[in-house]
Amino acid sequence: MTETVTVRNGIDVDQLLATIEAIKADPAVGTFTFRASSRWRDGTYNLGEIGRFIHAGLEDESRAEPFRLEGDEPPVLLGRNKGPNAVELLLQALGFCYAVGYVANAAARGIDITDMEYELEGDLDVRSFLGLAGERPGFTAIRVTGRVASPNATKEQLVELSQYVQDTSPVRDCLANPIPVTTTLEVR
Amino acid sequence: MTETVTVRNGIDVDQLLATIEAIKADPAVGTFTFRASSRWRDGTYNLGEIGRFIHAGLEDESRAEPFRLEGDEPPVLLGRNKGPNAVELLLQALGFCYAVGYVANAAARGIDITDMEYELEGDLDVRSFLGLAGERPGFTAIRVTGRVASPNATKEQLVELSQYVQDTSPVRDCLANPIPVTTTLEVR
Repeated sequence: MTETVTVRNGIDVDQLLATIEAIKADPAVGTFTFRASSRWRDGTYNLGEIGRFIHAGLEDESRAEPFRLEGDEPPVLLGRNKGPNAVELLLQALGFCYAVGYVANAAARGIDITDMEYELEGDLDVRSFLGLAGERPGFTAIRVTGRVASPNATKEQLVELSQYVQDTSPVRDCLANPIPVTTTLEVR
Repeated sequence: MTETVTVRNGIDVDQLLATIEAIKADPAVGTFTFRASSRWRDGTYNLGEIGRFIHAGLEDESRAEPFRLEGDEPPVLLGRNKGPNAVELLLQALGFCYAVGYVANAAARGIDITDMEYELEGDLDVRSFLGLAGERPGFTAIRVTGRVASPNATKEQLVELSQYVQDTSPVRDCLANPIPVTTTLEVR
C-alpha cells in the first residue's frame, strides 16, 4: 500500500516540489521583487501598504486588495501607540519567516508539526537615533526562542531542522548579513 | 515677540529635547528591549503579537492591548494571501523607520513637513530558501524612494536630512550591517 500525502502541515508538498523543479528548469521563476509603501500621517504615525509584487518579471495578480498596516511609537518615544514600531515589525518578520521555513521544510521531510511558536526580543539603544554618542542605531542583539512539537520526529531531527531554517531564512539573512540599501529622496 | 513651538510635524519637540537630556544624564533611559511573538496556525499562515517592551529595565505599561498581525504567503509561495509575507514586512518596517526619523529630526531642526512618503522594493531569489544553489536567501538589494514636501526648507536641507536619517535609522542599520541573531529551539 502506498501512502500519498500531498498536504502536510498545511503545505501542499506536490506544489512545493513542482515549484522547485520549475525553478531548476528556469531560475527566473525563483526571482521576486517585493514592495511596500508608506505615507506619513502625523508625528510618529504612518500608514503602510503592501500590495502586488513582481514574480519572474511579471506582476503577481493574486491580491485583489493591498494589506494595510499602521506604524507608530509608544508615548515614551513620542507617539500614541497606534501601531507597533518599526523595529518591533522587524522582530515579527523574523518570527514569521522562521515559522514558514520550518513548517515547509518539515513538510518536505515528512515531519508533522502540531505546534510551533516563536518569541523574539532585541536590544536597542536609542542614543544614536537621537544624535548622541552611543551604540549603533539598530539592534545590538536579537534573541529568538522557538518551540515546536511533532508526533513523528526526534528531538535531533527537529533541532537540525532549526539550524537548516536559520541558514536559509531570508529575514535572518537580511539581519545577520549586510544588504545594499539605496535610498533616494525626491523633493516636491 | 518670542515664538514658542512645542509641537512640529506632530512631534512634541519639548518632549524630544527633554528625552535627550534625560538620556544624557542617565544612558540607561535610552535602552530598550523590544519583543514580538508568533504562533503558527496552518501552512504558511502565522499570527503575530507585539505587546509590551522593556524600557530602562522596566516593562512599559502604555499598551493595554497587544497589536495583532497576520503573516502569510501568496499562492505562488504556497500560501493563501491572508497577510503580507515576512520580507514584505521588513520593507514596511524600513519605510516606517525612515519616516519617523525624518519628521522627528525635521521637527528638532525647525523644518515643517507637509507630505512624506516612501516606496520600497527588494529583490529576492528563493532558490536558497528552497534548498537550491543560488543567491543568498535574503534580499540582494533594497531600493527606497522617499518623497517629501516642506514649506520652509531648501532642497539641500531636505536632502542632507535624508542622509542624516539614513545614518541614524535603526532599521536601516539592522539591514545594512550585521546583527548577532541567536536562535534556540525548545522541543515539546
